Amino acid sequence: MDNAAEERLWEIVDASEFSLLITRGTKNGNPRMRPMTLLAYEDTGILWFATSASSRKVEELSEDPQVTACFLDLDGGTYAQLFGRAEVIADPSTKEEFWEDEWSCFWDGHEDPDFVLLKVVGSQAEYHLVDEDELWVLDF
Amino acid sequence: MDNAAEERLWEIVDASEFSLLITRGTKNGNPRMRPMTLLAYEDTGILWFATSASSRKVEELSEDPQVTACFLDLDGGTYAQLFGRAEVIADPSTKEEFWEDEWSCFWDGHEDPDFVLLKVVGSQAEYHLVDEDELWVLDF
Repeated sequence: MDNAAEERLWEIVDASEFSLLITRGTKNGNPRMRPMTLLAYEDTGILWFATSASSRKVEELSEDPQVTACFLDLDGGTYAQLFGRAEVIADPSTKEEFWEDEWSCFWDGHEDPDFVLLKVVGSQAEYHLVDEDELWVLDF
Repeated sequence: MDNAAEERLWEIVDASEFSLLITRGTKNGNPRMRPMTLLAYEDTGILWFATSASSRKVEELSEDPQVTACFLDLDGGTYAQLFGRAEVIADPSTKEEFWEDEWSCFWDGHEDPDFVLLKVVGSQAEYHLVDEDELWVLDF
């Protein structure tokens, strides 16, 4: 792993205005995306998101857990994407650790069984810097 | 087809600051996205993009032509996505019709064999309006 290249990846993630999670969505095999807020990341290539157990994306992940998380810095034209597998995490202590009170409009507290976390374990990431017109690829 | 719902889809496309084309990208089956400029659309669900015959996306499409085109209006939080199949179009008259002189930095004119068009034939589209918190689904 090239440390400078890895640091740049997380800089793009930190600077991104917008993140998307893409699943293999439709019955025909078309990808499906939705905006999602990144809660946290680990520089070993792990991303955390919050979602509902009853959501369509969780149903899609039970069919195919391969996902892509995208980070877009629109002004700069820079973008990064991380390829990985999503796991639905419902253990009480992790749910409590990530819980934010502002989510009370969506879920009835961290013990709500519909509140779950998505842990995306990245296998590879790539990003594109406009200045360099070059694609960087990192393996985790 | 609900005409008002269809009009709203194309309004989102017109207003979007940003469009992405998602292929089924990696060997592991992870989707891969890239920003792309929409050249034109037909309200029967057809989208047109320009690309290089030698590009990675064209290679990916030869493996799996199912794609998703995404349109993001970031300020409003509205987004739309169209699910379809991409065809690589290389016939000389269509290439000439779409050619823009500003692309001379990428291709050696409309006769350059590396300049091709992507025609995405949509089967379904969906969009999400933040105000309504509702998902609209349209079939083509």
